[in-house]
Amino acid sequence: MLLVAPVDQAVRQQLTDELSRVESLFVQELHSPLACVNRLVAHVERYRGKRLRPLLVLVAGMASSRDGATLTQAHRILATVVEMVHMATLVHDDILDEADVRRGGATVNSLRGNETAVMLGDYMISHAYHLCSSIDDQTIARTVANTTNVVCEGELLQLANRENWELDEDVYFQIIDRKTASLCGTCCKLAAQLNDQGDDVQQALDQYGRNLGVAFQIIDDILDLTGDENTVGKSTGRDLTKGKLTLPLIHYRTHAPATQCMAFIEMLKQQANDNDDAIGNQIQKLLTDFGSVQFASLRAAELIMQAQQALLVLPESPARKLLHEMAQAVLTRQF
Amino acid sequence: MLLVAPVDQAVRQQLTDELSRVESLFVQELHSPLACVNRLVAHVERYRGKRLRPLLVLVAGMASSRDGATLTQAHRILATVVEMVHMATLVHDDILDEADVRRGGATVNSLRGNETAVMLGDYMISHAYHLCSSIDDQTIARTVANTTNVVCEGELLQLANRENWELDEDVYFQIIDRKTASLCGTCCKLAAQLNDQGDDVQQALDQYGRNLGVAFQIIDDILDLTGDENTVGKSTGRDLTKGKLTLPLIHYRTHAPATQCMAFIEMLKQQANDNDDAIGNQIQKLLTDFGSVQFASLRAAELIMQAQQALLVLPESPARKLLHEMAQAVLTRQF
Repeated sequence: MLLVAPVDQAVRQQLTDELSRVESLFVQELHSPLACVNRLVAHVERYRGKRLRPLLVLVAGMASSRDGATLTQAHRILATVVEMVHMATLVHDDILDEADVRRGGATVNSLRGNETAVMLGDYMISHAYHLCSSIDDQTIARTVANTTNVVCEGELLQLANRENWELDEDVYFQIIDRKTASLCGTCCKLAAQLNDQGDDVQQALDQYGRNLGVAFQIIDDILDLTGDENTVGKSTGRDLTKGKLTLPLIHYRTHAPATQCMAFIEMLKQQANDNDDAIGNQIQKLLTDFGSVQFASLRAAELIMQAQQALLVLPESPARKLLHEMAQAVLTRQF
Repeated sequence: MLLVAPVDQAVRQQLTDELSRVESLFVQELHSPLACVNRLVAHVERYRGKRLRPLLVLVAGMASSRDGATLTQAHRILATVVEMVHMATLVHDDILDEADVRRGGATVNSLRGNETAVMLGDYMISHAYHLCSSIDDQTIARTVANTTNVVCEGELLQLANRENWELDEDVYFQIIDRKTASLCGTCCKLAAQLNDQGDDVQQALDQYGRNLGVAFQIIDDILDLTGDENTVGKSTGRDLTKGKLTLPLIHYRTHAPATQCMAFIEMLKQQANDNDDAIGNQIQKLLTDFGSVQFASLRAAELIMQAQQALLVLPESPARKLLHEMAQAVLTRQF
């Protein structure tokens, strides 16, 4: 992201420096006296992503600071904490989804088994809370934990709706708001709280992060449906084989004529059992031709506009501009 | 435990009341707006155990209070937190160990699959930290998280030593000190810290809890080897089929003549592959006849004596007496 967004040179340099501090905190916090633990942690670090969540903390922190630029150590710690929480989720998601490709590298569970992946994820969650409790304001840890409560609820709600072919938009949005958007919202809101901003700014930044997060998940779901494994960098077609209904599918099911709709559900059931590339392609073509993929893309674009509007509560600054660009980058999936 | 230890009637009544407050906090904290989550939580509550860890907090809190009896709300919260952490571990352990019997009920993963069990455990861990961050002293949450870091290290060290037939006593004790004893120590130490006790009392109570915890795990390991599933209330013989060396096995391997020792390791390898009752019984008989089971029992008894000695730092009180009895109860496995 940092390389593509048209960012002020000074901000770019500052973020590069701040991210490297976050990186140091990350490594330092996860270091163990046990060599066997450090080997596992080193493996996880290799599949780190584009660091959306720590960037949200850092850039929202800059944009909501008094001078539009200065960060505190608490911001760096929080940025590290949210990245650690997110990576723990990825490690546990690999168990959840029986994934065997994640960002081009082998997953922990395929290398070492489910049991190690569960415990390694737990180790990272535990360290995230440990680090978070070092921030000199207990409400931060309380809010982070409240957010992870909600993230887990989202994951459990999604699991409870596996192969629910009647899943509606309302429940779909409840799921992604909880499992993805809540943490993005908290990143931005707490960044403002650490700058002693009032409720109005905190709420606006929460809205920015949440809308961005929902859009991010919609795009992620579209890519799982239409994307290529090599481009996306992780297994695709998994939602279909797991019986997870996402926005394009829900659109088709609720708008296609009844007979087509019944045939469609039969295809979904078959794909959940067979995981057959030909059926996968057929479903993808159906949803593209019917305009359901475009419908979902447009919803994501609307949410990004709302996210960007929420930023107007802040004074103009290069950091605010960057938050605007980051939201845009979600749509073109530079994150 | 409460029914068998020869406890003062007033203390017994107080603990019954306190445990029911802890129970309420537990249920209240885990309540979700989502029905599907509450159904899962209700299932977990059904296989709650003897509540060793919350009892350690409560009784150590009473014994280290100014009047030897009065508890604060923070003690009740901490007691709830450690029970929640422990139960999350049990849920994740069921994934770890592919267990299909746990306290006489079906495990979450056998009912709902690994994915739900992982997320439900995460939900409980998250709520444990959320609740812990409500205590008006941030060092409590920091210490609890530090302890869970260590617990996870213990689990990972154990996994790394699966089918390590050369495992020695030193590493065995490192594993159980981390995965079991550290949390027991923290329960007692923090109970004293919440009473503003100084380092000496905190350290002594930490020693009490740690020694009790190591003894508890040794007994647990012996029961896995020699116990009956119906009496123990969970699957037995699992350590052998998982290639986990425990104290009686390590004793035999290091003390038996070389040729017997080699034959023994061959039996262990075979049992890790075949899980054959006849071989299991043969191993058990060998270890009993050689005195290795008794050796392990004696080590546990020594540790319990050390735990009881550590209590002398506290003034006499019915609660201190109860801590003494609780340690004794570990040996006869009333916990």
